[in-house]
Amino acid sequence: MREHDLPLERNYAEYESLRARFAAIRERTTYLCSPLEIEDYVVQPVAEVSPPKWHLGHTTWFFEHFILEKYFPQYRTFNKTYSLIFNSYYKSAGEHWQQKNRGVLSRPTVEDVRFYRNYVDSHMIEFMDSGPMTNEHRFLLKVGLNHEQQHQELLLMDIKYILGMNPLRCIYIDFELDGEFSRRDGWREIEPGIYNIGSDTQDFAFDNERPCHKVLVGRCSISSSLVTNEEYLEFIQAGGYSRPEFWLSKGWDWVVENRVGMPLYWYQEADVIYEYTLHDIRPLVGAAPVCHISYFEADAYARWKGLRLPTEYEFEILLGLSAAGALKGEKWHDYLAGGFHPRTLSSTGGQLWCWTKSQYAAYPGYTAFAGDLGEYNGKFMCNQFVLKGGCIASPRGHVGPAYRNFFEPQQRWMFSGICLAKDS
Amino acid sequence: MREHDLPLERNYAEYESLRARFAAIRERTTYLCSPLEIEDYVVQPVAEVSPPKWHLGHTTWFFEHFILEKYFPQYRTFNKTYSLIFNSYYKSAGEHWQQKNRGVLSRPTVEDVRFYRNYVDSHMIEFMDSGPMTNEHRFLLKVGLNHEQQHQELLLMDIKYILGMNPLRCIYIDFELDGEFSRRDGWREIEPGIYNIGSDTQDFAFDNERPCHKVLVGRCSISSSLVTNEEYLEFIQAGGYSRPEFWLSKGWDWVVENRVGMPLYWYQEADVIYEYTLHDIRPLVGAAPVCHISYFEADAYARWKGLRLPTEYEFEILLGLSAAGALKGEKWHDYLAGGFHPRTLSSTGGQLWCWTKSQYAAYPGYTAFAGDLGEYNGKFMCNQFVLKGGCIASPRGHVGPAYRNFFEPQQRWMFSGICLAKDS
Amino acid sequence: MREHDLPLERNYAEYESLRARFAAIRERTTYLCSPLEIEDYVVQPVAEVSPPKWHLGHTTWFFEHFILEKYFPQYRTFNKTYSLIFNSYYKSAGEHWQQKNRGVLSRPTVEDVRFYRNYVDSHMIEFMDSGPMTNEHRFLLKVGLNHEQQHQELLLMDIKYILGMNPLRCIYIDFELDGEFSRRDGWREIEPGIYNIGSDTQDFAFDNERPCHKVLVGRCSISSSLVTNEEYLEFIQAGGYSRPEFWLSKGWDWVVENRVGMPLYWYQEADVIYEYTLHDIRPLVGAAPVCHISYFEADAYARWKGLRLPTEYEFEILLGLSAAGALKGEKWHDYLAGGFHPRTLSSTGGQLWCWTKSQYAAYPGYTAFAGDLGEYNGKFMCNQFVLKGGCIASPRGHVGPAYRNFFEPQQRWMFSGICLAKDS
Amino acid sequence: MREHDLPLERNYAEYESLRARFAAIRERTTYLCSPLEIEDYVVQPVAEVSPPKWHLGHTTWFFEHFILEKYFPQYRTFNKTYSLIFNSYYKSAGEHWQQKNRGVLSRPTVEDVRFYRNYVDSHMIEFMDSGPMTNEHRFLLKVGLNHEQQHQELLLMDIKYILGMNPLRCIYIDFELDGEFSRRDGWREIEPGIYNIGSDTQDFAFDNERPCHKVLVGRCSISSSLVTNEEYLEFIQAGGYSRPEFWLSKGWDWVVENRVGMPLYWYQEADVIYEYTLHDIRPLVGAAPVCHISYFEADAYARWKGLRLPTEYEFEILLGLSAAGALKGEKWHDYLAGGFHPRTLSSTGGQLWCWTKSQYAAYPGYTAFAGDLGEYNGKFMCNQFVLKGGCIASPRGHVGPAYRNFFEPQQRWMFSGICLAKDS
Repeated sequence: MREHDLPLERNYAEYESLRARFAAIRERTTYLCSPLEIEDYVVQPVAEVSPPKWHLGHTTWFFEHFILEKYFPQYRTFNKTYSLIFNSYYKSAGEHWQQKNRGVLSRPTVEDVRFYRNYVDSHMIEFMDSGPMTNEHRFLLKVGLNHEQQHQELLLMDIKYILGMNPLRCIYIDFELDGEFSRRDGWREIEPGIYNIGSDTQDFAFDNERPCHKVLVGRCSISSSLVTNEEYLEFIQAGGYSRPEFWLSKGWDWVVENRVGMPLYWYQEADVIYEYTLHDIRPLVGAAPVCHISYFEADAYARWKGLRLPTEYEFEILLGLSAAGALKGEKWHDYLAGGFHPRTLSSTGGQLWCWTKSQYAAYPGYTAFAGDLGEYNGKFMCNQFVLKGGCIASPRGHVGPAYRNFFEPQQRWMFSGICLAKDS
Repeated sequence: MREHDLPLERNYAEYESLRARFAAIRERTTYLCSPLEIEDYVVQPVAEVSPPKWHLGHTTWFFEHFILEKYFPQYRTFNKTYSLIFNSYYKSAGEHWQQKNRGVLSRPTVEDVRFYRNYVDSHMIEFMDSGPMTNEHRFLLKVGLNHEQQHQELLLMDIKYILGMNPLRCIYIDFELDGEFSRRDGWREIEPGIYNIGSDTQDFAFDNERPCHKVLVGRCSISSSLVTNEEYLEFIQAGGYSRPEFWLSKGWDWVVENRVGMPLYWYQEADVIYEYTLHDIRPLVGAAPVCHISYFEADAYARWKGLRLPTEYEFEILLGLSAAGALKGEKWHDYLAGGFHPRTLSSTGGQLWCWTKSQYAAYPGYTAFAGDLGEYNGKFMCNQFVLKGGCIASPRGHVGPAYRNFFEPQQRWMFSGICLAKDS
Repeated sequence: MREHDLPLERNYAEYESLRARFAAIRERTTYLCSPLEIEDYVVQPVAEVSPPKWHLGHTTWFFEHFILEKYFPQYRTFNKTYSLIFNSYYKSAGEHWQQKNRGVLSRPTVEDVRFYRNYVDSHMIEFMDSGPMTNEHRFLLKVGLNHEQQHQELLLMDIKYILGMNPLRCIYIDFELDGEFSRRDGWREIEPGIYNIGSDTQDFAFDNERPCHKVLVGRCSISSSLVTNEEYLEFIQAGGYSRPEFWLSKGWDWVVENRVGMPLYWYQEADVIYEYTLHDIRPLVGAAPVCHISYFEADAYARWKGLRLPTEYEFEILLGLSAAGALKGEKWHDYLAGGFHPRTLSSTGGQLWCWTKSQYAAYPGYTAFAGDLGEYNGKFMCNQFVLKGGCIASPRGHVGPAYRNFFEPQQRWMFSGICLAKDS
Repeated sequence: MREHDLPLERNYAEYESLRARFAAIRERTTYLCSPLEIEDYVVQPVAEVSPPKWHLGHTTWFFEHFILEKYFPQYRTFNKTYSLIFNSYYKSAGEHWQQKNRGVLSRPTVEDVRFYRNYVDSHMIEFMDSGPMTNEHRFLLKVGLNHEQQHQELLLMDIKYILGMNPLRCIYIDFELDGEFSRRDGWREIEPGIYNIGSDTQDFAFDNERPCHKVLVGRCSISSSLVTNEEYLEFIQAGGYSRPEFWLSKGWDWVVENRVGMPLYWYQEADVIYEYTLHDIRPLVGAAPVCHISYFEADAYARWKGLRLPTEYEFEILLGLSAAGALKGEKWHDYLAGGFHPRTLSSTGGQLWCWTKSQYAAYPGYTAFAGDLGEYNGKFMCNQFVLKGGCIASPRGHVGPAYRNFFEPQQRWMFSGICLAKDS
């Protein structure tokens, strides 16, 4: 696929109508897959990486199950077996295929899934046009669109893994990466005090961002810049991966068992370290931010530096300050202006998800979404850590300061990086 | 694919020249895949089932590695990484991808593999045309062709598994199965005596069929008919899968751990048992032979009946007698005259591989093929049982009385059945 | 062992000297094992349950390694191989035996370990008597004693598991359990505000209790009573273990994979549910607190009730209020006055560790102990939840309001229970 | 235990009466355990190694279940739970504890098991004295005694593993090993012909030794000497463990996965290789036979030498020739005259079990023991290889030429060695 094939993304929040946003977001998902070969849609190299065609089907099933089957009487289910296949984990929505076995299904084919998408899309349009939507309908639609945007990022993560772990080392889109990696000046201080954390928007927010509540935060400083490849290399050269004193106990077990010695997508040949990106394979750019880092690695790196990771509160405050204009001139990445790889070191510029030291938990007064959707977020509040700030693969306008991403501490196939903090 | 798309198979042994056999056999492999969707070529539902595109690549690599790269100086390797991917298990041929992970590779694409086949095929033709072949060359070519024929059967086994385990229950070729399942009259007796076992042909035979040697065999009788579905159902209804006294110790563990209660490809819905075949899904035909049986099941069934499985010697003698004309009028199946599913009950008619009670071992005086090919058969002589007689998916002319197939006792995705024996 | 063989425990905090505390605490550890048969000292039924003789050796190694070998020049190591065996997980202290394999070692024998204890004890006394101890020495001694007290509770947990999982159902000490389980009146409210959390004692506190810091807490109520067996039975009878909607995702996987349907140590025979305790096996006492509950179960129960678990902050505040006299007349359990099983429903009376919804993390400004001891607590701050309040197996005086216990969410062999909370 | 504590073993076959044999054999089992500490009776370092106290209980349960409970009406079961614990794998005898979990049970104690033995022994004596035994009784008694003798050897194997894997490297009995390892002269030839294989004794034989039947055997030669440590070292030094071409496929996987590089009980320190025996730890004696070899290793060694392992038929013939006096002056080992470690190189002198290339299978016409005992041997005829000839840990008089031992190809904690063969 040539560079100009994938147009600059619009900020869908600006679309005048839900109907227009629906069309644009649904189209973009298909678009993201367009550089793929059929074979790329099918495989699942590890349990956490789903086949792209599964994402295409699952996001469609989401609208079918949560809206059309419930609220659009004339709708007829496309294929009753698809619920088994495309339900991810909603126990209340019936039996579902095991996540780790998604890659064993050759059928439905990609073509079948496209039919399914078209079928559901046309009925959704029909539904939206059939009369004024209730608040419930609008809410569900927004959930579905935000859900689809989350899967757009997952698609890029999974595509990167599928192509990047292959010994033939294929790339997604041939593209010349550039970047401007001059360091920001040092640390940004957060004043101690009581801050509002979480979202109180009248518009859509995920249940895990609510309710907005007050948190007491001490004085601290957060780095303006992400940790770079060359800084991380120093950690490696200092024996970082062979010195247990820097690691959490489970982290050390993970290092030993998986013989981890580098970030994901780094490969050493002779004396040169290469980095695989969605757009090329190149000798490591020392000044660029280190990517695809697990919590275990981020935490060990911080301990080695005598520093720490920020809490999710601290990072949210920093993002709020930035968004409010404190960092004049900073803007969030333009999609594919720079490709799906970081272009600056800015820790608040939506380059890489930043690990926080906060384990993912419910806010005080948390209430899950009603009904089946109650399984969306709440049931994962265990043994995961929060990441903040978005990344270059996040859909534009999708991620705000209150947004909480979360992953298990050993996972690193998302676009994650390290932003350090310290008490001050 | 319509029925007539796959032409009746010729008996390749009859081809006048190796060159003609090469072309015909190579073409047939591709042909067997022609009903597949691209997606079907890619997946690996369980470790022992390889993606069809892997078979296409591996059989090609076999000619490239064992003939072209060694004996055809002007040949240039198609892609050096393909050896990593398409070498199955020949340690002496360099590093190879782990068998269980073949299904995680989306690349090379099916199209890429077709290019690879064409490239190697045209060089093979060139090689064969470039002058008289030595005996060594002719031998390697025959190994390659017999090897490819083995993979033709594996392809049908794997395709059946890939399509049959999918909840959408797709079929391979729509085809009306028929069959004539009247029982043969009873038992065929083998006289006690010393018999020649194994192959002494001047033509090709696998190393594990050699040397021809003498074996003392006692009086026994072997059933003329395969065990039928309805006979096997009686075993089930008698509690066969819940009574450990019929099972080998490891067999019982296998039943319990995998909750096995039926042959593979049987599905119960309400009160009806269905059988999945490559051509349809139909209520179980009681009079047809029971298929896709593990050694553990065959052995337990025999014990329940108070009988036993034949030894590989006994079965080979019986096949020899049949082949010699003792069973006038019997002929081996015609491919796709009846589809890839048994059409008669004949235990010697090449309908289903028959489990023998013989563990797979070297014959006295066994010598492995020379060089890298030494890894072909010998290293698997451990914890496997021999099956004899061929099946409706075996290429015509490929399997003779001396041919030894072998599988682990829990495996059952091949076209295997039960033929009983008794001392007499 | 007869009841009177184990004397009432003194509150070691009251001992006039460290030397006296050392002698008393070390003796008590041995004492707790005195009812065991030699065989009971050796086994490890699951990875997390260590053989009692390992505890005896490990607590001894702790003094040998952290004090004698470093600060007492005339000391000679008892047996150099013991460090391999009795080092639990201190990577900086050299190679250590894998935790899960502690139960495969028959040697050193129990007698050998007693010699080891006596040897180290006599040298410790000598060391303490050899002159005034530095602050560093006193600190290490206190760590060692608190560490040993933690292992005293672990010993009781492990002994209970070793004896309770045995089909012969042995008991530890024959003892008539009694209890007074009248419910306290309802809920205790916590005023919103900023509270001091953590310890600022001049005396010993664990690193994970420090530093004392301020936390903003909202208005909430915490139950005065632990959840009872009969309340928990209602959850079971309402299908609690078969309804995924109440469970965390990982919790549901745990239920399914392990076929969990009851708290640990409950056994159903015919229609009667029995509970195994260290002192008897008796039909379930409905009014007594439910014990040996995992986080997953506590969390699911709370969700089923429409309530929640308290945070560790809330529970610490409640404990502080109680300790300060707000709950007149309440006292912590007297050891063996009531046996090692809860005697009241008081949620703050040190009956059962109460699960909190707080994942175990470092306090702001946390600093690990210096040196090798840095591995004591910090490296476990991942995928664990905090429990508060102590239990009837905790050594007297060992656990205060700031004490943080922590376990993985599926673990339940400790004396854990459920205390509910709600926003108000 | 001092050397003279364990008296020379008598050949129990010579005992005048079954009653006397019963007493002597039962006593010897207890005797073999007498050097152990209580702790040694309890542990199970790996699944295949049972705790000694389990052997003591299981052999007792065998008499209780198969004789006393069935044929001695006045007998009352000692403890009904013991059947759960001490039944090894007889499904028809009721539920049984999982083999791999035998080491988690601290109770019954060793003392309890001794009571159990005494109780059952006194009732067995009473039973034998209560009147003339039927043939059935005599048969069951002989099975029980031969079974107990098998467990005597297992006890020595398991004790060696328990003590030998412990980093404290304890020995069983301090004893000065000697040996006379001069090589026998070369090869012993077996004439081609038809031989009787198996047992037709009127006295006791195991079901798997029957029926005696005729086998056609070709000309071959079998080494008079076992392979020695120094010969095996040459294999190691030639890269034996790093060259896949010598190994069975499953064998190579075993080597890689377990990082095998030496026989069991060899340990290298600095440049010296030590061998652990039940009696000492000593630098490897080059001229002594190599011990504790898996089938995979024996087979790889033979392939490296360009030779092969004998079949079980060939070895049985050789043993028959030896037993018949062809090897004048050879005698079977005297127990503890030389300790439980080989003293000569004789391949037929009962020094080490010799691996054969024969997979363990039923003889033609095989019938399992009747009733529950049918599970004794037959159900293990799968994925095991036969070993012949006995070893220095086999009870005297227990193992004859027809005796078939069998183990899985990766197992090597029995006293196994290598005897080579070749076609000639």
